Amino acid sequence: MILTRWLEFDTRIGDVIDITEKVAATVQESGLQAGIAVVFVPGATAAVTTIEHEPGLVDDIKAAIERIAPEQNEYAHDQKWGDGNGHSHIRASLIGPSLTVPFQNGQLMLGTWQQIVFLELDNGPRDRRVVVQILGE
Amino acid sequence: MILTRWLEFDTRIGDVIDITEKVAATVQESGLQAGIAVVFVPGATAAVTTIEHEPGLVDDIKAAIERIAPEQNEYAHDQKWGDGNGHSHIRASLIGPSLTVPFQNGQLMLGTWQQIVFLELDNGPRDRRVVVQILGE
Amino acid sequence: MILTRWLEFDTRIGDVIDITEKVAATVQESGLQAGIAVVFVPGATAAVTTIEHEPGLVDDIKAAIERIAPEQNEYAHDQKWGDGNGHSHIRASLIGPSLTVPFQNGQLMLGTWQQIVFLELDNGPRDRRVVVQILGE
Repeated sequence: MILTRWLEFDTRIGDVIDITEKVAATVQESGLQAGIAVVFVPGATAAVTTIEHEPGLVDDIKAAIERIAPEQNEYAHDQKWGDGNGHSHIRASLIGPSLTVPFQNGQLMLGTWQQIVFLELDNGPRDRRVVVQILGE
Repeated sequence: MILTRWLEFDTRIGDVIDITEKVAATVQESGLQAGIAVVFVPGATAAVTTIEHEPGLVDDIKAAIERIAPEQNEYAHDQKWGDGNGHSHIRASLIGPSLTVPFQNGQLMLGTWQQIVFLELDNGPRDRRVVVQILGE
Repeated sequence: MILTRWLEFDTRIGDVIDITEKVAATVQESGLQAGIAVVFVPGATAAVTTIEHEPGLVDDIKAAIERIAPEQNEYAHDQKWGDGNGHSHIRASLIGPSLTVPFQNGQLMLGTWQQIVFLELDNGPRDRRVVVQILGE
């Protein structure tokens, strides 16, 4: 059985948003006991991963992402399209748009200090929609 | 229900190949309405992700990948085996061989400017096979 | 049909552990012919990916991970909590906790030289549990 839902929220530059509760609520809504929750970002300038969502690590992941694809580098994307968000695209492609989390007894099998986070990587605020799809039995 | 298919194509060094249409066609072939498309690279020197597939970002992602694991670094793999593709393996492991994309109403839930891409990371042309597996209802 | 199992093992700092056989055994145990094996790390300081598991590349991936998030950088996580493992968290978030591998005829569709590996990224030995969930038919 499959349930597909959208999460919707507004973001600001650099947001690292804990969406764990919303994903867990979607598992609950499905009524399924075992299976996977697929979290997918339908866009090319944001990503999803897990982290211990505390203010220190939120700062640390932002610094690490800046090192991976520095904003001040030259990007052919910006030279061609003038969007100024070449770094956003590259960061998103490297971290990835998709996360698959198993659940059992209706509960996501996350670690105690592990949260599912949406990473806003674009160079301005956005209205975002994220897919949560539950597959299971 | 599950459908498993192979995509086959030839590559050259550094290719960033848009396989979105082929994955979408596999979803269509399955006849399923909702579920996931799993794209998997059965090999250790290539990867899969999503990106806005335009020439600027294709150049930008190649430059970013070179920064992550520079070809000119020394790799123990090369010293031991003489393959000269230690950087290819490391890049592939860091980006990852697997991508999961949900679909609904028989359509992949990608963003408008988001394509599924195969990254050829090896140091020579290859005949490649990629798994596309559709799970759904 | 779905089968959920735990892999349990002890680790030391920097371990790159080949868990392919254990994942393949879980597929066998399920008795399923086609589907996916989801490997998930329920924790914020370890990750999973694939690599050709030979000693050279094990050294190379450790060096690459150190470049991505150097241990000697300053991390706000460490300044706040004193855990000394800020780099572990960041490395884990960037590589990712989840891997999805398709199987067919009861066999994982990996490349010949491609193994599933658990990356211990924390700053001390750990008792680890990894989820393997098989979904298929």
